[in-house]
Amino acid sequence: MVYFQNIDKVKFEGATSKNPYAFKFYNPEEKVGGKTMEEILRYAVSYWHTFTMDGSDPFGAGTMQRSWDKFSEMDLAKARVEASFEFYDKMDVPFFCFHDSDIAPEGSNLRESNQNLDAIVSMIKDYSKDSKAKLLWNTANNFTHPRFVHGAATSSNADVFAYSAAKVKKGLEIGKELGAQNYVFWGGREGYETLLNTNMKLELDNLGRFYHMAVEYAKEIGFDAQFLIEPKPKEPTTHQYDYDVATAHAFLQNYGLADQFKFNIEANHATLAGHTFEHELHYARINNMLGSVDANQGDPLLGWDTDEFPTDLWTTTLAMYEILQNGGLGRGGLNFDAKVRRGSFAPEDLFHAHIAGMDSFAVGLRVAQNLIDDKVLENVLNERYQTYTEGIGLDIVSGNTDFHKLEQYALGLTDIKQTSGRLELIKSTINQYLLQAFATVNVR
Amino acid sequence: MVYFQNIDKVKFEGATSKNPYAFKFYNPEEKVGGKTMEEILRYAVSYWHTFTMDGSDPFGAGTMQRSWDKFSEMDLAKARVEASFEFYDKMDVPFFCFHDSDIAPEGSNLRESNQNLDAIVSMIKDYSKDSKAKLLWNTANNFTHPRFVHGAATSSNADVFAYSAAKVKKGLEIGKELGAQNYVFWGGREGYETLLNTNMKLELDNLGRFYHMAVEYAKEIGFDAQFLIEPKPKEPTTHQYDYDVATAHAFLQNYGLADQFKFNIEANHATLAGHTFEHELHYARINNMLGSVDANQGDPLLGWDTDEFPTDLWTTTLAMYEILQNGGLGRGGLNFDAKVRRGSFAPEDLFHAHIAGMDSFAVGLRVAQNLIDDKVLENVLNERYQTYTEGIGLDIVSGNTDFHKLEQYALGLTDIKQTSGRLELIKSTINQYLLQAFATVNVR
Amino acid sequence: MVYFQNIDKVKFEGATSKNPYAFKFYNPEEKVGGKTMEEILRYAVSYWHTFTMDGSDPFGAGTMQRSWDKFSEMDLAKARVEASFEFYDKMDVPFFCFHDSDIAPEGSNLRESNQNLDAIVSMIKDYSKDSKAKLLWNTANNFTHPRFVHGAATSSNADVFAYSAAKVKKGLEIGKELGAQNYVFWGGREGYETLLNTNMKLELDNLGRFYHMAVEYAKEIGFDAQFLIEPKPKEPTTHQYDYDVATAHAFLQNYGLADQFKFNIEANHATLAGHTFEHELHYARINNMLGSVDANQGDPLLGWDTDEFPTDLWTTTLAMYEILQNGGLGRGGLNFDAKVRRGSFAPEDLFHAHIAGMDSFAVGLRVAQNLIDDKVLENVLNERYQTYTEGIGLDIVSGNTDFHKLEQYALGLTDIKQTSGRLELIKSTINQYLLQAFATVNVR
Amino acid sequence: MVYFQNIDKVKFEGATSKNPYAFKFYNPEEKVGGKTMEEILRYAVSYWHTFTMDGSDPFGAGTMQRSWDKFSEMDLAKARVEASFEFYDKMDVPFFCFHDSDIAPEGSNLRESNQNLDAIVSMIKDYSKDSKAKLLWNTANNFTHPRFVHGAATSSNADVFAYSAAKVKKGLEIGKELGAQNYVFWGGREGYETLLNTNMKLELDNLGRFYHMAVEYAKEIGFDAQFLIEPKPKEPTTHQYDYDVATAHAFLQNYGLADQFKFNIEANHATLAGHTFEHELHYARINNMLGSVDANQGDPLLGWDTDEFPTDLWTTTLAMYEILQNGGLGRGGLNFDAKVRRGSFAPEDLFHAHIAGMDSFAVGLRVAQNLIDDKVLENVLNERYQTYTEGIGLDIVSGNTDFHKLEQYALGLTDIKQTSGRLELIKSTINQYLLQAFATVNVR
Repeated sequence: MVYFQNIDKVKFEGATSKNPYAFKFYNPEEKVGGKTMEEILRYAVSYWHTFTMDGSDPFGAGTMQRSWDKFSEMDLAKARVEASFEFYDKMDVPFFCFHDSDIAPEGSNLRESNQNLDAIVSMIKDYSKDSKAKLLWNTANNFTHPRFVHGAATSSNADVFAYSAAKVKKGLEIGKELGAQNYVFWGGREGYETLLNTNMKLELDNLGRFYHMAVEYAKEIGFDAQFLIEPKPKEPTTHQYDYDVATAHAFLQNYGLADQFKFNIEANHATLAGHTFEHELHYARINNMLGSVDANQGDPLLGWDTDEFPTDLWTTTLAMYEILQNGGLGRGGLNFDAKVRRGSFAPEDLFHAHIAGMDSFAVGLRVAQNLIDDKVLENVLNERYQTYTEGIGLDIVSGNTDFHKLEQYALGLTDIKQTSGRLELIKSTINQYLLQAFATVNVR
Repeated sequence: MVYFQNIDKVKFEGATSKNPYAFKFYNPEEKVGGKTMEEILRYAVSYWHTFTMDGSDPFGAGTMQRSWDKFSEMDLAKARVEASFEFYDKMDVPFFCFHDSDIAPEGSNLRESNQNLDAIVSMIKDYSKDSKAKLLWNTANNFTHPRFVHGAATSSNADVFAYSAAKVKKGLEIGKELGAQNYVFWGGREGYETLLNTNMKLELDNLGRFYHMAVEYAKEIGFDAQFLIEPKPKEPTTHQYDYDVATAHAFLQNYGLADQFKFNIEANHATLAGHTFEHELHYARINNMLGSVDANQGDPLLGWDTDEFPTDLWTTTLAMYEILQNGGLGRGGLNFDAKVRRGSFAPEDLFHAHIAGMDSFAVGLRVAQNLIDDKVLENVLNERYQTYTEGIGLDIVSGNTDFHKLEQYALGLTDIKQTSGRLELIKSTINQYLLQAFATVNVR
Repeated sequence: MVYFQNIDKVKFEGATSKNPYAFKFYNPEEKVGGKTMEEILRYAVSYWHTFTMDGSDPFGAGTMQRSWDKFSEMDLAKARVEASFEFYDKMDVPFFCFHDSDIAPEGSNLRESNQNLDAIVSMIKDYSKDSKAKLLWNTANNFTHPRFVHGAATSSNADVFAYSAAKVKKGLEIGKELGAQNYVFWGGREGYETLLNTNMKLELDNLGRFYHMAVEYAKEIGFDAQFLIEPKPKEPTTHQYDYDVATAHAFLQNYGLADQFKFNIEANHATLAGHTFEHELHYARINNMLGSVDANQGDPLLGWDTDEFPTDLWTTTLAMYEILQNGGLGRGGLNFDAKVRRGSFAPEDLFHAHIAGMDSFAVGLRVAQNLIDDKVLENVLNERYQTYTEGIGLDIVSGNTDFHKLEQYALGLTDIKQTSGRLELIKSTINQYLLQAFATVNVR
Repeated sequence: MVYFQNIDKVKFEGATSKNPYAFKFYNPEEKVGGKTMEEILRYAVSYWHTFTMDGSDPFGAGTMQRSWDKFSEMDLAKARVEASFEFYDKMDVPFFCFHDSDIAPEGSNLRESNQNLDAIVSMIKDYSKDSKAKLLWNTANNFTHPRFVHGAATSSNADVFAYSAAKVKKGLEIGKELGAQNYVFWGGREGYETLLNTNMKLELDNLGRFYHMAVEYAKEIGFDAQFLIEPKPKEPTTHQYDYDVATAHAFLQNYGLADQFKFNIEANHATLAGHTFEHELHYARINNMLGSVDANQGDPLLGWDTDEFPTDLWTTTLAMYEILQNGGLGRGGLNFDAKVRRGSFAPEDLFHAHIAGMDSFAVGLRVAQNLIDDKVLENVLNERYQTYTEGIGLDIVSGNTDFHKLEQYALGLTDIKQTSGRLELIKSTINQYLLQAFATVNVR
């Protein structure tokens, strides 16, 4: 325990504390709506952004000050494991997530890469025994290496398809070994640079085949994790096949996979696809496919994945509202797929950033639960759709009507009474709930 | 024949003609790939933009100079029919399209509105007899009237659902009466202003019910038009349920409607959804759901539906490439859902604009056919995906493999040979074909 | 007092009140930083959105339920004046703003239009005597009428330039008559549809001449209002010349007008130009050109001017921070250039919406003042730029250096010590201040 | 001459040639409007994208296959110089451009870095003697190294300001040594990550001081290159101070630098700022500040700098129209600040890509010259602004009027005659000129 000196375990000290290394709103043991915050929020640390990412961007070299960077190769990998568990414990988070390439360096061939992975996985397994932190999900990085230049499961090159399959096979085995609750697919290169050289039908068919084989293999080895697809519209590709939740939903239905997958929804990816975060969560929820969340935020004025730590309380509130309406995230969790800014290069920024994110979702949780307890939005809906609970409306939703009957009814209508949508009053009310959430905390 | 004085029938005079009222590239009788241009392109005039639209925008009043505007109500409606057929004949287009509200004014109740429609439909039927122009598709305007403020088939008010159904019922009857080849659904208000007051599940379920009833009624009356959904992501709504082709595809599959519908794809709607036009066409095509096209273009720097006449030759080329690969548009066509700019208010601008659009797609057709004849992109694909025609690649596409075999194969791989995607060379080649297309015309 | 029945004067009742027609956070008489909220915030009602706007959009007809709409022409104009003062008084706002065309109908020629204006201006003057509400600013609507199709002061037609000048002349006279504190120029049509038919140099030169003549005439009649330019990037034009604050700043400098104008900055226009609201305010402030504010908000996922009532508390906080750093808005104010949604058509929505906006900026004011009192951001800056207070840094800001000295210094540098930008901690801290703001209110 | 084997000197072979390594439209010796294409277009190769860039992106490692990459450090730098001159000669380009860090590795301190630069600059000077290729412009890379994390001339750290000055000082000396015709400033880090920790006023003041010192030093050493600012709105920063041409114009005027600088305008940066390329060129031109061009293109559907080779013929035409109206680029040129796609990793793609770009601008040049020769747009403008050549219009542009006279005139106006803007006809006409351009070539 030497990587984050001078920083103690982060504890809840409430909003009035001036200690920057304290939770102000997240109190893991406090109950909200019958469960503890920790049980509901199921926070996870992203290995890549927190322990591997160096702060480089397309116009600049790495800036991050990380004491483990004095090591290299497998020594570096091991130092990161040590640092990661120190961080999990000090942040008191119950989960973490990784890509294969985050935890161990690629070897000169697949066999060597797998050996590297085995060594580190074994080390993680050991460290997990003495820690609260468990693996929420893992995934295969099938996008960084040059071999994936034209895609992975949708590569124009069959060798790459095979290589990708082998990496996912290993990933499923690692997930089983570490008891992962989910397994994630992010198709960072599954899309196209230009339609002009792309056989989209073949590529999508191959992607369907790939997913079927993955489902098959997980069943074979008895790995019962929830499979998750993480939609993103573009970047690094010009167009990614899993553009948004609806697009991936179309794909899964088309290839007979809708029952095998749920979604891992990222806020910033929603923004890039032109949606709000809550829209994507809602769409998945009403289709019973909300699996897990990548909790970050983007900058709506920037056109790339900024992966910022979430601090927008309006959005965390609406996101938690969807999650609570979903009955929670089940085996999923809130993974901070978020990176400190390139200018926030000090080790302590990792703590500030995670506290910022955890506190923000804790505020969202409190507000959302209050909205639910007071039936604020539920009442809005009940009143607004009241006409579907009787008469012609009930006939419609019961399937007891047709165009003849509806026309007859319409011919008899004189004036249709509409009610205001009251968007301004609703937003105002949510703001009041937001500002009241803290009052409650303060009372403690 | 009094509405467009001093303008004669538009004929093909080739690129060197200085006559602004002549086709330079569109020659209806010329054969391209075995069919005449007229047979392939199946151009249609949009009644609303050409005969009804007045040039107003959110910050300005109408500007259009239209001689029929001296009339009002049913007299206006009749004058528009006369003007429209004069225009179709002078432009020599084979098709037109309309919303119910474009052709006849709403009455004080549904019955009266339907009577108005009957009178005008009868008049259109008469005029059609002496004209080449036929009805490509019609649709119901379920978005302009205040009753649709909260949606139509997805309204929060059951009365509005019923009213919408009655209007679509009438629309199907009109379509049958006029021999329409397609029937279009554009859900301009089928979406939400804010998720906060919206029961999306109920609204989508209702939309599914609505479509099923429409399918049922068309079957009942023996109206065998192709049903088309026209996706659009937003505007006037914050979010429209038929966001893009993939989203609507998910919906249709989810509600058991995928076999009953194809898509009417609009270029500008693609742009607003973050896609290229050719992407939307391609997605629909490989799912056998490319039905018809709203041929216009947007301005990628503007965030609203500008509905410009299409003049981007790169895009018309790639669009025609998709359409030719689709074996043409079947019963569909290229409808100019495009309006002259507010500053192009003179009657003759309607001619300039349609000529611009028709010539642009004619250029696209010529170039696309040449690309196909020379197998330019076909060769790119064949070479690029060659590894799927043998060995492990063939196993993959034949379904003769699994993760075990693929891993074994990958463990044996030393170096994966990749080939360049050659995007720059491909684009350069298409540009050469574009510039050569005219040379061919000129030779005539 | 008959237009807004059943709604009493809106008063401050604090956050815990359930009365939807009460201020929860805006207390006009409460002092913040030494002045009352009313003195600092200087709220204004926009005549156009509140009394004239009918709820129509590009795809739909008007929906607003307004009891004064039973009148027409001058009777309607008079009824609106009555309704407006009832509204100002019930909302207890100190200011209002209008375009000429909002308050009186255009006549059949300029003389008649001016007579209509005179009648209504006289009525407004009378009503103002018995009301708190005064004119914050007025302006000329030089964009709605078809004559402005190609611009106003930048029209391609000299007659339109003249007509525009006459309207602004009258506007300046009205402003003087009613004691307006500012006069606003929004160039809704001062830009281009396409560069291809535009002489931008001539148009900009003409705009410069127009502004000089306006300055001249105001001086001549002794109208000492602050002149304000309101930047907007586009819509209805493809490109508007006053794209953003920096662009208009370039223009004003180029034409020798920088001392005569300040800016009226609208949040939604900032978004459309790709900026945050606070960026535009900040840029204007450090150039001593922050004059007034159009307080609304846009939807960053929509590409048009949604003009929503402001409810984003993060943004109102940062906006009020800039305004307080500016020493307030001087003669300017916070004008709600915001409209109720088309679905919020009930008269009471006007109250809900204004309360939402006024409360949101009141929260922003409280939080911003607390941040200033505690020197939160001031300390961040002092520490971050500390190197410019001594040594080479002091030489740089004092102008006591050159490239030779700087190179010598740099050659001697071994390691440059950087400090973290701490964005995450800063954002987290502001969130804490936001949530604490309410606690203070609650104590009352 | 060993780096690009099997590729001969690229020559003009005309559109019908099937040789992919031939110019189809660019004929350096052919005269257009009295000058040779080479004289007008002044093409330059970007050292960074062509010889240094490795194809990595935020989600992937380098892919480029470059035979010089077997070397490292100074050996690599030297190999690149050799390769670069082989490339210039085979492509027959007259110019190249570089950042200091492109041509030589940084040493362990500034002195060592400068020594590295000296060695390579001397080598480049030697190679230049036997080559047509000369230095169009150079610049200092003050953005990649971690020291620039918080900016360069606008850094929050005075040491970094000094270091940046030393690098620009060296850059000016190199420019003089190699006879550069221009010197470019791109402020990749001169902006902010967040306004919350930024003293924008101090940073802008420092930037002004920095530019003044640079002007001073260039004068001192007798380096008479044109100074150029290259605007970009964002990326890697959240906001870059030189947002667009107008913003930088405001800055230059504000700091008394407008006479010392012109602009280097990049197409993709225009797109990112919400402008067309031609808009930025036009704005600079009418202010006599169009200096040079970074000839690339972006993807309007992607929110980052894609730096694609230009192939959009519509845009190259309008760009060349502005350039010809400017009387050419003077000392500036068309620099291909463009990179082959990550998937176009073969060495020959560098040739295909440059040919694509050079041919595209050559087409643009031909079309633009034809438009000018036939006064196509000139006639549009003359007719459209005709009212400013006589009567009240002439009074306006001559400054012989005021609001009194204009009002008198307006009061006498009955009907204002407007003429159509004819956008559709104009676009159609340009398309015809585009397609005719090739016919001319073909005749040869």
